[in-house]
Amino acid sequence: MTIMESIPYQELEIGATATYEKSLTEEDLVLFATTSGDVNPVHLDEAYAADSMFKGRIAHGMWSAGLISAALATVLPGPGSIYLGQSLNFRRPVRLGDRLTVTLKVKEKRDDKQIVTIDCKVKNQDGRLVVDGEASVIAPKERVRVERPQLPEITIG
Amino acid sequence: MTIMESIPYQELEIGATATYEKSLTEEDLVLFATTSGDVNPVHLDEAYAADSMFKGRIAHGMWSAGLISAALATVLPGPGSIYLGQSLNFRRPVRLGDRLTVTLKVKEKRDDKQIVTIDCKVKNQDGRLVVDGEASVIAPKERVRVERPQLPEITIG
Repeated sequence: MTIMESIPYQELEIGATATYEKSLTEEDLVLFATTSGDVNPVHLDEAYAADSMFKGRIAHGMWSAGLISAALATVLPGPGSIYLGQSLNFRRPVRLGDRLTVTLKVKEKRDDKQIVTIDCKVKNQDGRLVVDGEASVIAPKERVRVERPQLPEITIG
Repeated sequence: MTIMESIPYQELEIGATATYEKSLTEEDLVLFATTSGDVNPVHLDEAYAADSMFKGRIAHGMWSAGLISAALATVLPGPGSIYLGQSLNFRRPVRLGDRLTVTLKVKEKRDDKQIVTIDCKVKNQDGRLVVDGEASVIAPKERVRVERPQLPEITIG
């Protein structure tokens, strides 16, 4: 049993950072395409993608954005946060096997509404920026501790 | 065999609109949590979610954003588009069974770079706004026609 623990609003300091990592697998692309309906062949069809300007399959931009969402929801501020908004710039393609690191950095705090502005950068294993932007979340008042839900096994095909 | 066809930059008129619809299933939540790693229990654990301010399981905000991505990639401008950026405001929770409609509307065109700014609104079956924001995409120069990729069957659990 793994516990996820939030950082309450009062303890979030300007400049505090946290990271979250994930590699892109072929399964990730198929699951993202299925759950969203985004079946652009540049993500799914190797022959089509090889012929495109990307020269191979790439992740949906919004998949990388999903990693930002995961970092906010599980690490900083963590469980109990309420996601208000996000800006995203898609800067570079993400390829199968790429290992992405999301870095979050607390930028501003608005005490009256417990709103935190968080700078978000997603880089690949070569340190190159693939997505950046800014998140706006309400951080939890109290420390929230929750058991990490177990995900069911998924079989493709 | 279904064909997806893009609307080339020159044919995109300011004010033109397109829609894309999808309902939220439990499978969607599990797949999104798996592909992103966003295992916030408010999306996955019915007992936890029932006790939360949301009074039941809700979609990841970024799942609804994924529907915007799907609408841009498959409908307007469609295949061959390059996604540059997106702003997102998460305005209302989305619940299991909710049917969402994404409406895209061409807002601005920048001829030198073929960049189109698109207003994005996601509403639920009651017509209430759940997400809005603005997308920035490079629209394809030519009409692109691609076969809609078939997704493999997915078994959960």
